[in-house]
Amino acid sequence: MRPITEEKFESIVEFIKEKKLDVLMITDYEDSRNVNLQYLSGHPTDATILINSSGETILIPWDVPLAEKHSEVDEIINPANFNFNPSLAIKDLFENRWKKSSITIGVHSMTTYGLIVKMKAIMTGIKFFEEPIQITQLFEKLRSTKTELEIKRLLKAGQIGNRIINNIKDFCINNPDGTEKDLSFLVRKKIGDYGGDDVAFEPLVANSSRAHEIHQHPFASDQRFGLPGLALIDFGAKFQGYNSDITIPISFGKLSDEQNKMRELTIKSYETAIEMIDMDVPLWKIHDTAETVLRKGGYLMPYSLGHGLGLTVHDSPFVTRKPTDEYSKKHWKEVTIQDGMVFTIEPGAYKQGLGGQRLENDVLIRNGKVEIITKSEPLNF
Amino acid sequence: MRPITEEKFESIVEFIKEKKLDVLMITDYEDSRNVNLQYLSGHPTDATILINSSGETILIPWDVPLAEKHSEVDEIINPANFNFNPSLAIKDLFENRWKKSSITIGVHSMTTYGLIVKMKAIMTGIKFFEEPIQITQLFEKLRSTKTELEIKRLLKAGQIGNRIINNIKDFCINNPDGTEKDLSFLVRKKIGDYGGDDVAFEPLVANSSRAHEIHQHPFASDQRFGLPGLALIDFGAKFQGYNSDITIPISFGKLSDEQNKMRELTIKSYETAIEMIDMDVPLWKIHDTAETVLRKGGYLMPYSLGHGLGLTVHDSPFVTRKPTDEYSKKHWKEVTIQDGMVFTIEPGAYKQGLGGQRLENDVLIRNGKVEIITKSEPLNF
Repeated sequence: MRPITEEKFESIVEFIKEKKLDVLMITDYEDSRNVNLQYLSGHPTDATILINSSGETILIPWDVPLAEKHSEVDEIINPANFNFNPSLAIKDLFENRWKKSSITIGVHSMTTYGLIVKMKAIMTGIKFFEEPIQITQLFEKLRSTKTELEIKRLLKAGQIGNRIINNIKDFCINNPDGTEKDLSFLVRKKIGDYGGDDVAFEPLVANSSRAHEIHQHPFASDQRFGLPGLALIDFGAKFQGYNSDITIPISFGKLSDEQNKMRELTIKSYETAIEMIDMDVPLWKIHDTAETVLRKGGYLMPYSLGHGLGLTVHDSPFVTRKPTDEYSKKHWKEVTIQDGMVFTIEPGAYKQGLGGQRLENDVLIRNGKVEIITKSEPLNF
Repeated sequence: MRPITEEKFESIVEFIKEKKLDVLMITDYEDSRNVNLQYLSGHPTDATILINSSGETILIPWDVPLAEKHSEVDEIINPANFNFNPSLAIKDLFENRWKKSSITIGVHSMTTYGLIVKMKAIMTGIKFFEEPIQITQLFEKLRSTKTELEIKRLLKAGQIGNRIINNIKDFCINNPDGTEKDLSFLVRKKIGDYGGDDVAFEPLVANSSRAHEIHQHPFASDQRFGLPGLALIDFGAKFQGYNSDITIPISFGKLSDEQNKMRELTIKSYETAIEMIDMDVPLWKIHDTAETVLRKGGYLMPYSLGHGLGLTVHDSPFVTRKPTDEYSKKHWKEVTIQDGMVFTIEPGAYKQGLGGQRLENDVLIRNGKVEIITKSEPLNF
């Protein structure tokens, strides 16, 4: 079943007509993933989907039996008839079925430049819509509000995450010599035990010597997790394709004044953001206000305050600053809080030598009300 | 430390000069990964690297401390000075440091179309090299032969995989009711125990009801693994960034004549391929010959016979058919077997209702000799 609603699908067809596109194309392959394939078709992976101005959907999957099982499209083209080369299948459609001498294809920003160049070379009369950012933004807008079923799955992903918070507490108390990898493994195991599909992403487990790194490399090391100072664990569960995302700021032992300040600034920034969340509030304002709290305390947040949750962990809407280059400014549209949005709030303070703190929970907007669906809070051991 | 050798790096600089590029740019971000960033710089992730025609390397990382720890480049630019927008940092370099009025940037095929459009919009006088496939092929060629250190790591990744084969045997014998997820979890656990960084990829664990799917979705299910018929497990270990890749064809119980035929065809195709491997043999010939064995038996192999192993699981060289569209044909160059190559051989036969079989091992070419570094073989329980 495709996650997109009929109404939203119709708005894509309207866009195709309005921009005078012959077809809109989304590609998802190993080196360039695009979850909009799944959103539009139900088919999970490794395919090209075309939508034409009549709203017809044509899927060119790598794996036909998989497509027959999962997809909801008007037609499935067998790639074996085209030497497993989707570009040749598209060429055949245009030349032999639709008999067009010139065509305009709309693509997502994430389409690879290599594919654009190749398709131009093998199909004469082909043009690509020159503002892929508009297509990307259209999908971001549609995916930023979730259906009832999507919300149900996101809530369950959040609940699995909440149960794991207790396992993490137990680990910190009962396994003081446990390593980051041990804790990462525990989280993965428990997600399976609690009925999740998988981790939403590789858990970031960082003791006080690594927690300043923000995106740890490696994700979890063989070092002991419970070193004195400021540590954190950032993890999430995937349930029926939908993701949760939680960060727990954890401290071990007595903290220095500066470490206490980092922890308090993080909490203050988080609480400031949560208090601002309300219908029709622009997301950039929440980002800027929360960032200012940290900045005034002497800490820089080099990332966005939050992001949507859905079929990807970094879904729309994005709780982030206004764009800074002319091109992005020209295309930017203010996004405000609406019913059906699910997103994270995750400010943090980081300093090499002192560690890092990040407090992250997942927020749902439903019937005009704000629900905090995950239960992370600062822990001390 | 950067994995690329000085000699290979010089050949990139030669390419830049020959094609009259001002700069070659590789980008690696969440939605569009490109391991050539790591290959060129040592920096693992989330950055843009520029190489100019003098061979200077400039890194614009998202995380400066991470870059200071891992990268080997001439200069690191702090993205905080450009609102964390790498395009603005590049614009500044061209306009204020290099003072160029027109520039040509070479990019990899995997660069996103959105970035190309955006950079053209914000930088006047910018041009992109029109044959990104040549840059992709250059990197494929360089990465297809490994250094001593890379080979050492690949051998270790293979050895970890070999130890796990024994764990899989034990699982099949001692845990007949175990699920696919149980087995997937065991593999992950043992990779950690044996000193691996992580799984090379999410293990594909497929009982006889799922093994025809080739790329399983989900990767492992809650179903019992040891159902009668043709099953398989496809897994690999990552060691210090380098990957192994092994598939074991496993059968449970008495097989039908057709199932026996699938198993024997797979083995025959595998053995035919292995026997052909020798210095200077074209890889497409090995693919075609092995595929013909399967085809004559009535089975289609809808993928490539093998792929290189390295910093990615699907590295160069590719053991695959000749290209089928005019554009790819024009750019195609025959790749032959050379010292330092490490690649998989993995034919298989699949049929819904009967299951699937794939036999995959990793092959190293060293001092003109062929070494099979992993030890997969068909198992029966």
